Amino acid sequence: MADHPADPSGEDSLIARYFRPIATDPGAFDLGDDVAALKTDGDDIVVTTDAIVEGVHFLPDDPPDTVARKALRVNLSDLAAKGALPAGFVLTLALRSADEAWLKPFAQALGEDATQFNCPLLGGDTVSTPGPLMISITAFGRVPSGQMVHRSGAKPGDRVVVTGTVGDAALGLAILKGDKIADATANDPAARALLAGRYRVPQPRGAIAEIVRTHASAAMDVSDGLAGDLAKLCRASGVSAVVDLESIPLSNPAQDLVARQMVGIETLIAGGDDYELLCTIPEDRVDAFVRVADLAGVAVTSIGTVVAGGSAPKFIDRQGREIALARLSYSHF
Amino acid sequence: MADHPADPSGEDSLIARYFRPIATDPGAFDLGDDVAALKTDGDDIVVTTDAIVEGVHFLPDDPPDTVARKALRVNLSDLAAKGALPAGFVLTLALRSADEAWLKPFAQALGEDATQFNCPLLGGDTVSTPGPLMISITAFGRVPSGQMVHRSGAKPGDRVVVTGTVGDAALGLAILKGDKIADATANDPAARALLAGRYRVPQPRGAIAEIVRTHASAAMDVSDGLAGDLAKLCRASGVSAVVDLESIPLSNPAQDLVARQMVGIETLIAGGDDYELLCTIPEDRVDAFVRVADLAGVAVTSIGTVVAGGSAPKFIDRQGREIALARLSYSHF
Repeated sequence: MADHPADPSGEDSLIARYFRPIATDPGAFDLGDDVAALKTDGDDIVVTTDAIVEGVHFLPDDPPDTVARKALRVNLSDLAAKGALPAGFVLTLALRSADEAWLKPFAQALGEDATQFNCPLLGGDTVSTPGPLMISITAFGRVPSGQMVHRSGAKPGDRVVVTGTVGDAALGLAILKGDKIADATANDPAARALLAGRYRVPQPRGAIAEIVRTHASAAMDVSDGLAGDLAKLCRASGVSAVVDLESIPLSNPAQDLVARQMVGIETLIAGGDDYELLCTIPEDRVDAFVRVADLAGVAVTSIGTVVAGGSAPKFIDRQGREIALARLSYSHF
Repeated sequence: MADHPADPSGEDSLIARYFRPIATDPGAFDLGDDVAALKTDGDDIVVTTDAIVEGVHFLPDDPPDTVARKALRVNLSDLAAKGALPAGFVLTLALRSADEAWLKPFAQALGEDATQFNCPLLGGDTVSTPGPLMISITAFGRVPSGQMVHRSGAKPGDRVVVTGTVGDAALGLAILKGDKIADATANDPAARALLAGRYRVPQPRGAIAEIVRTHASAAMDVSDGLAGDLAKLCRASGVSAVVDLESIPLSNPAQDLVARQMVGIETLIAGGDDYELLCTIPEDRVDAFVRVADLAGVAVTSIGTVVAGGSAPKFIDRQGREIALARLSYSHF
């Protein structure tokens, strides 16, 4: 394309310098072929793809290492929700320029996460764009044949459980953008750091992928807000649910902000970027599920019950009243 | 993310309207789960990912149906080059807005190509961006275990062959951008249409994927210019090559422009977007390869020979002189 500077080695040398060193899996062919190869070993391969865009899913001044981790982890969260173990990923990077001060820590953090989560970089594409930075990752997971956990298996009587805490990332984003939550936490740097960290660096719950696979009747990851994502799971399963708002797990800083009436619980359960797992578990397996998850270092909280019916999930406050939600979740359009 | 309009059904309804109807493979789960599932049937899965960006890989006024076809076909071209048969793809679409007049023909053409090339849509992600449109596709192919064709297998004595014709897409881009090639073809609408079409809608060579797998010692797709891509293949194989410039296959409009000295052959072999296959074939298999490819409707031309050595491939003109290339290929950075 004649309008671009002629630099035969530019893109290739960028890949060689930053990404080849972290693409150590044999199936990556040192990033030197047209494709990568994925060993299947008789398992089913599940595929997920999630993109993050500067100014939409991360902030222009987010550190490059946290951007890298978020890009990979939002995909690892999907794999965990399906009971799959990571098998590798490919990366598409749309860059305005080959800025080494950004690329070096980005690639290093990506490599660290790939190692930590046992999900090797297998290949990718690097393109130039005049627009915002965009990182699109397609990740692969393995599940024993036929054992993927779907959204559609929830049954009346199952318990609704969620990992970790809900709403922190939405608060972290508000803090990073300097809105009123930022003022409300101005004197609490530890709270600000915790909440901002929850927005910037999700914690995928792969440590419990295997018990999700063996115990959950349905599961998904919570990325667009607990309320909306539970509604999706219920719709896919042809059921409804009743959730006890008081039981929704909140971090200490979130509890504090709710107590001070700086934010309502309905905002927290509609906020995006939690990347926790939402599962339905048959009643007789809940105790075992919670116990084994706890041993794996993942807190699980039971927040409600699956019920028959086709209506949207109900959220009940401490007075037993159903609260109305102005919006269920984040949507791009 | 509080700064976006609250429309709980926007992204989902966009997917439901335009992409669910074309995602008919059972592994796509009606685009209603977190992941897709890929049947492996004991084959190796190969993975390729290629993104196209508005203003870089396609023009802002390119028709949406050709943009869809190009986005998928550049990936199908990689699969064919590896001897793989398509198994499916996932799509990431970064859009400024949900413009139905654009999305409808885009999705329809994507669905038609998915059917034509037997490569079902399995899943995807739709995100908003303030920047240029970007379509990132990750495609999957199947090859019998261990039989993927690499870039690295070329041996001295092998013939270098290429499918189709070279340089048309670079000319088509020049015409669409209105540079001097546009003036030179002003009175020849058929030539303009052919060349522009070659830029906008690549022809993946999947029809010969199986004989590439059974006959080629090395192969890759030509996307960044024949000269540069051959250099890459030679480097990966630890060999060099000698190419007879006169034998490089050109379309009639390209031949005409070369004859009129409107463009040099060195520009055509450094131009991007050919999406033809470049293969090295052992001497004793060349005739069979060409014949079977011809039966499959794909013209194959022998353009040179693999030789020992580590230097860059040599391009020899009709006087037997080596020509110097100012640049080998297109690079994004």
